[in-house]
Amino acid sequence: MPNSFGILFTITTWGESHGTGIGVVVDGCPPNLPLTIAEIQAELDRRRPGQSDIVTPRKESDTVEILSGLHEGRTTGTPISMLVRNADQRSEAYDEMVEKFRPSHADYTYQAKFGHRDPRGGGRSSARETIGRVAAGAIAKKILALAGSIEIRAYITQVHDIVMPAVEKFPTLAEVEASAVRCPDAATAGLMIARIKEVRSQGDSVGGAIECRVRGLPAGLGAPVFDRLEADLAKAMLSLPATKGFEVGSGFAGSRMKGSEHNDPFAMLDGKVRTTSNRSGGVQGGISNGEELIFRTAFKPTATILQSQKTVNVQGENTELAARGRHDPCVVPRAVPIVEAMTALVLVDHWMRHSAQNRIFKF
Amino acid sequence: MPNSFGILFTITTWGESHGTGIGVVVDGCPPNLPLTIAEIQAELDRRRPGQSDIVTPRKESDTVEILSGLHEGRTTGTPISMLVRNADQRSEAYDEMVEKFRPSHADYTYQAKFGHRDPRGGGRSSARETIGRVAAGAIAKKILALAGSIEIRAYITQVHDIVMPAVEKFPTLAEVEASAVRCPDAATAGLMIARIKEVRSQGDSVGGAIECRVRGLPAGLGAPVFDRLEADLAKAMLSLPATKGFEVGSGFAGSRMKGSEHNDPFAMLDGKVRTTSNRSGGVQGGISNGEELIFRTAFKPTATILQSQKTVNVQGENTELAARGRHDPCVVPRAVPIVEAMTALVLVDHWMRHSAQNRIFKF
Amino acid sequence: MPNSFGILFTITTWGESHGTGIGVVVDGCPPNLPLTIAEIQAELDRRRPGQSDIVTPRKESDTVEILSGLHEGRTTGTPISMLVRNADQRSEAYDEMVEKFRPSHADYTYQAKFGHRDPRGGGRSSARETIGRVAAGAIAKKILALAGSIEIRAYITQVHDIVMPAVEKFPTLAEVEASAVRCPDAATAGLMIARIKEVRSQGDSVGGAIECRVRGLPAGLGAPVFDRLEADLAKAMLSLPATKGFEVGSGFAGSRMKGSEHNDPFAMLDGKVRTTSNRSGGVQGGISNGEELIFRTAFKPTATILQSQKTVNVQGENTELAARGRHDPCVVPRAVPIVEAMTALVLVDHWMRHSAQNRIFKF
Amino acid sequence: MPNSFGILFTITTWGESHGTGIGVVVDGCPPNLPLTIAEIQAELDRRRPGQSDIVTPRKESDTVEILSGLHEGRTTGTPISMLVRNADQRSEAYDEMVEKFRPSHADYTYQAKFGHRDPRGGGRSSARETIGRVAAGAIAKKILALAGSIEIRAYITQVHDIVMPAVEKFPTLAEVEASAVRCPDAATAGLMIARIKEVRSQGDSVGGAIECRVRGLPAGLGAPVFDRLEADLAKAMLSLPATKGFEVGSGFAGSRMKGSEHNDPFAMLDGKVRTTSNRSGGVQGGISNGEELIFRTAFKPTATILQSQKTVNVQGENTELAARGRHDPCVVPRAVPIVEAMTALVLVDHWMRHSAQNRIFKF
Repeated sequence: MPNSFGILFTITTWGESHGTGIGVVVDGCPPNLPLTIAEIQAELDRRRPGQSDIVTPRKESDTVEILSGLHEGRTTGTPISMLVRNADQRSEAYDEMVEKFRPSHADYTYQAKFGHRDPRGGGRSSARETIGRVAAGAIAKKILALAGSIEIRAYITQVHDIVMPAVEKFPTLAEVEASAVRCPDAATAGLMIARIKEVRSQGDSVGGAIECRVRGLPAGLGAPVFDRLEADLAKAMLSLPATKGFEVGSGFAGSRMKGSEHNDPFAMLDGKVRTTSNRSGGVQGGISNGEELIFRTAFKPTATILQSQKTVNVQGENTELAARGRHDPCVVPRAVPIVEAMTALVLVDHWMRHSAQNRIFKF
Repeated sequence: MPNSFGILFTITTWGESHGTGIGVVVDGCPPNLPLTIAEIQAELDRRRPGQSDIVTPRKESDTVEILSGLHEGRTTGTPISMLVRNADQRSEAYDEMVEKFRPSHADYTYQAKFGHRDPRGGGRSSARETIGRVAAGAIAKKILALAGSIEIRAYITQVHDIVMPAVEKFPTLAEVEASAVRCPDAATAGLMIARIKEVRSQGDSVGGAIECRVRGLPAGLGAPVFDRLEADLAKAMLSLPATKGFEVGSGFAGSRMKGSEHNDPFAMLDGKVRTTSNRSGGVQGGISNGEELIFRTAFKPTATILQSQKTVNVQGENTELAARGRHDPCVVPRAVPIVEAMTALVLVDHWMRHSAQNRIFKF
Repeated sequence: MPNSFGILFTITTWGESHGTGIGVVVDGCPPNLPLTIAEIQAELDRRRPGQSDIVTPRKESDTVEILSGLHEGRTTGTPISMLVRNADQRSEAYDEMVEKFRPSHADYTYQAKFGHRDPRGGGRSSARETIGRVAAGAIAKKILALAGSIEIRAYITQVHDIVMPAVEKFPTLAEVEASAVRCPDAATAGLMIARIKEVRSQGDSVGGAIECRVRGLPAGLGAPVFDRLEADLAKAMLSLPATKGFEVGSGFAGSRMKGSEHNDPFAMLDGKVRTTSNRSGGVQGGISNGEELIFRTAFKPTATILQSQKTVNVQGENTELAARGRHDPCVVPRAVPIVEAMTALVLVDHWMRHSAQNRIFKF
Repeated sequence: MPNSFGILFTITTWGESHGTGIGVVVDGCPPNLPLTIAEIQAELDRRRPGQSDIVTPRKESDTVEILSGLHEGRTTGTPISMLVRNADQRSEAYDEMVEKFRPSHADYTYQAKFGHRDPRGGGRSSARETIGRVAAGAIAKKILALAGSIEIRAYITQVHDIVMPAVEKFPTLAEVEASAVRCPDAATAGLMIARIKEVRSQGDSVGGAIECRVRGLPAGLGAPVFDRLEADLAKAMLSLPATKGFEVGSGFAGSRMKGSEHNDPFAMLDGKVRTTSNRSGGVQGGISNGEELIFRTAFKPTATILQSQKTVNVQGENTELAARGRHDPCVVPRAVPIVEAMTALVLVDHWMRHSAQNRIFKF
């Protein structure tokens, strides 16, 4: 099921950019979870186009409908189907996209794989697909909050070559949402916004990076060997459009250290087993150790730019792609809630898998 | 199945470091594949301890037995079960490992998760678990070679702060295997070996990075959305012990570029649709584009060091872990065949999934 | 994913009887399949209420919308999402169903499992859930027809104690659809219809049995061991509401035979390996042998009857359930297209699995 | 993974009749379960050849080795790998089996599917494959016993046309094991044994049926829609060699009843919600209702008989298969522990799935 994610808390997304709509089916949700449509809409609003002056002006309210799985305000334990209808299906660039493969987009590879594709707005490979992930992630976040006061916080640490200074304390949601760019350091946020506006004025785009931290995780969540927590998070992040890299804890920098510097010593603190450096990033041998989970994801610059580009057409001829289209000069600010959603989905799934193996003696 | 990997070409590994042995069951292998035990042993020999003077001196021949699935030298299409018996089960450090959690190992998290663990040599979290992956990967490599002359080449690009200069051409296996450190640049290899010996003499360890390239892949391999080729590779890499990061194509560096610099233009070359920069790393929208697949994985320094370390015991008391044990001062050279094996497993699985969806009209 | 079926051609159904609607997401469909909404609607029309005077008079047009996965009349290889809105949501019996567990329904067990349920019309356990299966099955049938001229024919062989004489030749669709009861033997069909009307007039219901035959299957479809073709068909049939039994080929009668009578001898016929008795039912060792696949499914009488019944309420008190509600006096005629749909889904999935394992050397 | 069964408590079996051995890997077993090799061997002894004078005289001790997953007498939560080496690999009939397809065996279909097979003793389609299931099932039984005093009892109700009278009370293990035929009714057992000896003396074989009952199951176990408890049991049973049918509760007989007769009324008994007829067989809407789970499986007569049979050879010529070989004149007595094992596997898997969805709020 290439369009599903998760083993026990499973989401299946469907829909194309310019079709009827975009949707998701959540299967395996625990019953009796209090849930309102507003909780889901709030997360979608953080993802939707047109939310600020540094994102695409595409007009979409992204209003969610819950079609099943809820009764009298609580989940029933059966599939939760959610639908967001597409509104702004402008397709002026349609003819050109049918004919020419856009560089660094999925046009050519979809054609090579399927021999047939819906070229309008990128079809299935449009970032609109992530709507379903964010809607489902809102439910996962709610479960984590109720199950263990677990909090997930993603924020931008880098736009182009502007890098936020390292931050020790766990940023609040308000600090992240204070700026349109979702960088909790106000000074850096200002620089980032200026840079994004600058490249937009050049018809260009930039990439960046998101850090995600989770606090409140108990020790013991995850799995050995293939389904390590960091492995499933890496897959989740690299399954997002435009991502090029993932690192956990010390990451690539850790690979340039010696063991004596890098090792994360254990110590007792307030009666708890703790580690003192968290270079592990909250996970050891694939399993959470009770420290903050911390990882970073790299995003490439938006492939759509307002500059003419060399490419090839479906007839196999060299050609040029005209500069055109509405786009995000930097996808990273809107990716923040998506990173949080995918993180929540991974954690709930592992939590359920932990319950399955360890709670069997209590029905 | 947390100990299985792959959807159609599936491996299930089992076994602990100091138990009877280590094994793997390969399910879904195509029938009629010519296969010899020597082909599998050859890959295991690249992974085994004691192969050179920069790896652990632990004595293990790692001799593989094939228990099922082969008849008259060809696969039958039924499960291939393989077993490597453990030989050198020295457990002098046993008592201390029962009592004290080794820093940056999985001792504490296994205990937290399962409430019970086999502490001898790390039990299931020992890197010996990867024997099964390498044995299965040898079969996957053979399939790729026969199916499409697909070649996978991994090699070390970094040890500690020594970085190999970028290499344009696809290194040969001989170039990689020329040095014990598996860096195809001879001069850099010399420096890396010297560094590894130096840190070993200090009772310390170092990390590093592996680059992996695949040539011969057709365009169209992979899947949209969750099971993107790079997502499955990221999971595969982060499922390896000691890994902290993954990047594909331009990677983290790509996140510091502008779209106009980063985009990977299409051009016709010898009648084929090609891209000219391969900043995409051979994959676009989760699907191979026919260029070389290229990605890098970061490994932390070995956690076991010959220095005394602060830690905590199972009674929840602060204590010290004595310096002791045989270990690899740098795990990265022996990880090269493991990276190749996991890559081969991901590619065969996706190839089979492609066949399933696209070959249905020919039984 | 308890609401999904299939490994490679996967369907996920969602929706409740009296909610917004009922839907299905089909994942893994081959691309480039010509498909019209009329082909899907035709199968739904065979399943829908109100189609004849022996089924429930509930008014539902069951009009299907295709929300994704189709472009210019051909499948794209991405998820096909389909939706049927609920129309006739009369809930006069609502209050009683909230309070009292209906005998031989799933009210009590859903409550026991989830601690919360949508009681309107049975919620998720309503037979309306099968709408999604039939819509998806229509696609599977089309694939089988195009891939190998494979034809699936289900028909009623028994209603209450009226049993159709054994039929040698493969019935035509017209013969099956000639009567409202879907028994291809006209004389028996008449008796069955009379019996159904008789029990309805008594406020009662009856059960029955469906035979399903598939012709055109090549030898080699299926899998050894757990995923035998008959095992997956058994699961498919027992996953349908109201089913109590399954048998393939000689079935339960075969268990009363001697080996010398029962064995299915091979013989060459027109240059093909054939079996001469087909007591195997077209499958040997879990794999099709090229003969007609043949199996039967038993359905219990409809649980809803127009008679007062003893039961228990949610407070744990003995009580009576009043006679009421619209219902099918016999669910079996409407189950015929559902049996065909599930059969088609199993066969396409196995076909794809066969392609995956056996077509790998041709990309 | 066609050689795996279960979603959370997963078994993967491997091995051929005349290869090195037969094995199973159990993944997902809860940690800390006390387990001895004797508990597993005891179940294998009920399955093994040569145990009585009505089963095959093939000499196999079927001694099990546990290769991993156990430490100091308790499970670790990691994979449990078990191996039974093949001993009696007599292959005198080898040459004929290479050449000729045995009627009602899987020789032809394996050849058609894989184009290659291990013909010795049926290779992978040999009933020896069930050794792995029984070994894994022993662990599942232990879990059920500890988790909820759940007891599974299978026994023969029919051999050829000899049918045991219906029995109200749950038979004890001693009653079942009292006779070699495993029928708890002593008088019927005598008749069955005589019949088996009679057909053996004729060089023939007979089929039969097994009833399986489970007591102690809580209400709420199972899943709606596709993974109904009875659907998973049906798949489990039809995945066993030689099975032709499955029915639960009222079964095929239920399809010949009226709703007013068949419905299973609820009543309060000792403060519990109970049903009074158990025609449901302990399951409603796919979920256990707290009553005894009861189902029956039909087995065809052994395909191997000591009579010459018409068949076809691999060159596609009509030929005769000579009478030869050791075999079970009736497979059903040895199938009793296998039916119990598969039942235990289904129940533990569903129990774990229940825990996953319903225990999430307690880590």
